[in-house]
Amino acid sequence: MMLEHKVRIPASPGAGYTISIGTGILGALWARLEADFGRHSKFVVTDEHLVSAGHLNTLLGGRDVPAFVISPAGETAKTIHTVTSIIEAMEKAYLGRDTLVIALGGGTVGDIAGFAAAIFKRGVPIVHIPTTTVAQADSSIGGKTGIDSSLSKNAFGAFWHPAAVYIDVATVGTLDDRQFRAGLVESVKHAIIADSQYLDYLEANLDAVLQQKPEVLEHVTHWNCKIKGSVVEADPSERNKRRILNYGHTVGHAVEAASGFELLHGEAVAVGIIAAGMIEEQMQLCEPGRLERIRGILEKLGVPVRLPGNMAEENLIDLIKRDKKAVNKWPRFVLIAKIGEVYRQGGQYAVEVAPDVVMNVLERL
Amino acid sequence: MMLEHKVRIPASPGAGYTISIGTGILGALWARLEADFGRHSKFVVTDEHLVSAGHLNTLLGGRDVPAFVISPAGETAKTIHTVTSIIEAMEKAYLGRDTLVIALGGGTVGDIAGFAAAIFKRGVPIVHIPTTTVAQADSSIGGKTGIDSSLSKNAFGAFWHPAAVYIDVATVGTLDDRQFRAGLVESVKHAIIADSQYLDYLEANLDAVLQQKPEVLEHVTHWNCKIKGSVVEADPSERNKRRILNYGHTVGHAVEAASGFELLHGEAVAVGIIAAGMIEEQMQLCEPGRLERIRGILEKLGVPVRLPGNMAEENLIDLIKRDKKAVNKWPRFVLIAKIGEVYRQGGQYAVEVAPDVVMNVLERL
Repeated sequence: MMLEHKVRIPASPGAGYTISIGTGILGALWARLEADFGRHSKFVVTDEHLVSAGHLNTLLGGRDVPAFVISPAGETAKTIHTVTSIIEAMEKAYLGRDTLVIALGGGTVGDIAGFAAAIFKRGVPIVHIPTTTVAQADSSIGGKTGIDSSLSKNAFGAFWHPAAVYIDVATVGTLDDRQFRAGLVESVKHAIIADSQYLDYLEANLDAVLQQKPEVLEHVTHWNCKIKGSVVEADPSERNKRRILNYGHTVGHAVEAASGFELLHGEAVAVGIIAAGMIEEQMQLCEPGRLERIRGILEKLGVPVRLPGNMAEENLIDLIKRDKKAVNKWPRFVLIAKIGEVYRQGGQYAVEVAPDVVMNVLERL
Repeated sequence: MMLEHKVRIPASPGAGYTISIGTGILGALWARLEADFGRHSKFVVTDEHLVSAGHLNTLLGGRDVPAFVISPAGETAKTIHTVTSIIEAMEKAYLGRDTLVIALGGGTVGDIAGFAAAIFKRGVPIVHIPTTTVAQADSSIGGKTGIDSSLSKNAFGAFWHPAAVYIDVATVGTLDDRQFRAGLVESVKHAIIADSQYLDYLEANLDAVLQQKPEVLEHVTHWNCKIKGSVVEADPSERNKRRILNYGHTVGHAVEAASGFELLHGEAVAVGIIAAGMIEEQMQLCEPGRLERIRGILEKLGVPVRLPGNMAEENLIDLIKRDKKAVNKWPRFVLIAKIGEVYRQGGQYAVEVAPDVVMNVLERL
């Protein structure tokens, strides 16, 4: 005979956060943070680029706030070692569960700081202040955090929604040109999967975007936040619809890893977007000229649209098998039916693609 | 001018899990797991003690299932290094987000495996099969997971509720006597904070408990699950009421750390329960004879009721300041008004105690 006891976890109430977008607002943000999060101890996580660009000083305005500066910056910092160092720095500052973590930086800083906040003393709130095109378009919104293992990207992670996001589009002015351009690939992705009018706008205003016209950057950022936000609202823990945001990412993540992270995330995703387009062609989901149009936009951005010459297809296939969304060791792919509309099969947003189709595309990519 | 966009995270629906309690059920559990979680890939986390006690073999019944055996076992295994090794073992087995982690073991195994499940690819479900008195009474229920940093206990962690808990009370038969007894301290704690009838039952049946009479162990386990479960239901993320479960733990955790984890968790908590009783006496919350009665029960269990002689009070105070529930570098304490009823102040279940009161108690402990 067995005794049974049922434990009921109550429903958790809805929550939300506000994304505030402006130009040149960084210097006034701390007062806003004090107003919005007055009762919390503050801890800043940033990286050496933000220090040398002067953005950390602008944010703090001379205030004495404990901070952790990730160095060297970049994807290679996304290790458990970095997270351990951040958590021990918080402990050494005697910070407790009333801590607010403030992530100032790009996607890497957000991923690392978000994960550290998610697991510090079983979780403390985080605010994102994204400073790169990729983070402002994508990674600061939606609560995905993660770090890499020696085997794969984002092997460790958590869903940890921010308490607020503040975007100063002027901060992208200190990015190097390559990083600035690579980050715009996520904007192109948003337009491809969700809004053909947005793709028209991007295509028509690409020069103004590349010249960093404030009102155009704010407009693009607002568009990105609306698209990303609506997908996250529909599916906060990536059970179904949110997978559409992985358009171009299944091959993209593999390419990024295979390059030893020499390629920037957005650059690898650009290659992945072309791979998705070629899969769509091969599966006859693609109207004439669509892939050429997308390739043209990405080329104008100056990001890669083919595999680097030294990359072995077999290695990529092995990395694709380790994709975190893999079920039975092979991931499903997000494809589009037309610009602004994801292809669905049996209600699913991610569909089966035979390995030999992928292999064929990789060989031609 | 600032643009704003609001992201709404929808309410998450209520959930729950069943705790099943029996004697000698371990050998039949895998069939139950296959019935309840058929679509998941399985991965077992256990430790060397469970292997040598034969429990892993009993659970698997010759099936070929990927497993990670923590070695050496014990609190010192609660490091980020162990979690990293588990996650890389899951990756090497090509496991994805459809993985079910099965934790077979005591509180340490549950803490480590639960945390690994919480952060593997942003979270996969976990089932607990607790095999020690402390895990069956307490740690397998409620979703708290965590590992230690070089500075403090459970510095890293997450709330990650299990998908199910299966308790075979016969598995405690292979514990060494010291561990068996120490684990019963959490049962005494449950009775003290929540149910005076349960304390009467424990006191009257302590010999039968120590002789491991199955029906008494099942009854005690069921009582523990009801008390722990009801507190967790009222407060799944430890915002207020759940803190009552930390009775004896504020000093207890410090004593455990100061002993270099030579003391078992339950042994340290026993000392912490006496410390809480002495604080209650000093704050005149204690009716005559109450502390003596509790000390008598703990002494009959054969657990420590005083500080080890070599422990410096200053060191303990420093560790108490680092308590994860510390706010402004000093934690609040859970105290009782009478057996079965926590003392509340202004609606709070954890109350302020002046550092000099704690110092005075530590000097006399």
